[in-house]
Amino acid sequence: MTGQSPIVYPGRMSRWEPQARERLVRAAVELFDEHGYDSTTVVQIAQRAGLTKSTFFRHFPDKREVLFAGQDVLCELLAGGIDAAPDEATPLSAVAAGLEAAAGNFTPELHAIGPALRAVVESNSDLREREALKHHSFADAMTLALRRRGIADPAAGLAAWLGVLAFTDAYACWIDPACDQELTALLRLKLRELRAAISSLD
Amino acid sequence: MTGQSPIVYPGRMSRWEPQARERLVRAAVELFDEHGYDSTTVVQIAQRAGLTKSTFFRHFPDKREVLFAGQDVLCELLAGGIDAAPDEATPLSAVAAGLEAAAGNFTPELHAIGPALRAVVESNSDLREREALKHHSFADAMTLALRRRGIADPAAGLAAWLGVLAFTDAYACWIDPACDQELTALLRLKLRELRAAISSLD
Repeated sequence: MTGQSPIVYPGRMSRWEPQARERLVRAAVELFDEHGYDSTTVVQIAQRAGLTKSTFFRHFPDKREVLFAGQDVLCELLAGGIDAAPDEATPLSAVAAGLEAAAGNFTPELHAIGPALRAVVESNSDLREREALKHHSFADAMTLALRRRGIADPAAGLAAWLGVLAFTDAYACWIDPACDQELTALLRLKLRELRAAISSLD
Repeated sequence: MTGQSPIVYPGRMSRWEPQARERLVRAAVELFDEHGYDSTTVVQIAQRAGLTKSTFFRHFPDKREVLFAGQDVLCELLAGGIDAAPDEATPLSAVAAGLEAAAGNFTPELHAIGPALRAVVESNSDLREREALKHHSFADAMTLALRRRGIADPAAGLAAWLGVLAFTDAYACWIDPACDQELTALLRLKLRELRAAISSLD
């Protein structure tokens, strides 16, 4: 750096940092997996990604948020899928449309780091809390989208949480190295199983 | 203190600190409400409760956990209520039994501090995360208890989350100063509404 700021184009990423977010996520998960979450610093993550610390902080507020990088995008996709469902779709069919829209965001790269990411989150109570909040964010995004379709409470919240359960079940299967199914197929399967379970509740 | 340890009887509380936990919770919520969560220290909480800092730390690891003091007891009550439900109870009837068992823990004291407690949690993202984890803990406790009754997944998890939704809805009504209903009645009402909503999902 010469002291001059690099030219930064609109949006989150400069043209000089291609895939910076993705590289930071991969580097963070690798380092957390190798050395533990607590022992890894932002500087180490940036170095592993071949980026600077200030680039890190242009993308994430702290090392924890790297692990939850996709939350806002996923909430938008879930809500967008529900918004775009046909008018006649039932609440659960609309949720299915939301889940399928979100599935498109799960790249082979995310599949590859999935088991290490899961292990890191499970190893740390602070990360488990953050994960719990992520699930609430998904439920809130879907609940709001379902209400926009005229679905009243508590049906909207209930359908949204069913979507969260389907998503978490399907994701857990998807990242299992023994599983070779596509996420979309798993989401459909889990939602079908939940729909069938509804009739056994009472 | 003379340097000698006080006689500590089995269990969480010494005979020299009657209702220490309850006093610390009340003091913490009052101070968080008056001065904000971030500005309040453990020393101030202990002082307001008429106790020492070391007494505080015998009961809670930090000021945050004061706000989630009842979580473990509630999980035990939820699971115990489900365990004790009649053999022929449906999954949702067993969940209802769990919720009613837990309702007994909600004292007039908790009702009185409810709105301030809610406001503090809502004001802080760290506390909202912790609250989300609390809900996951309730769901996990109920899911495990339902599985012990032979209820398979995903029905067990689904019934448990229905219980969490009923609980959070009922609690929100209960602490509303405009509401004069008992928590048990509200839990029954919310669960009835959720049961009715199930049939509209698909």
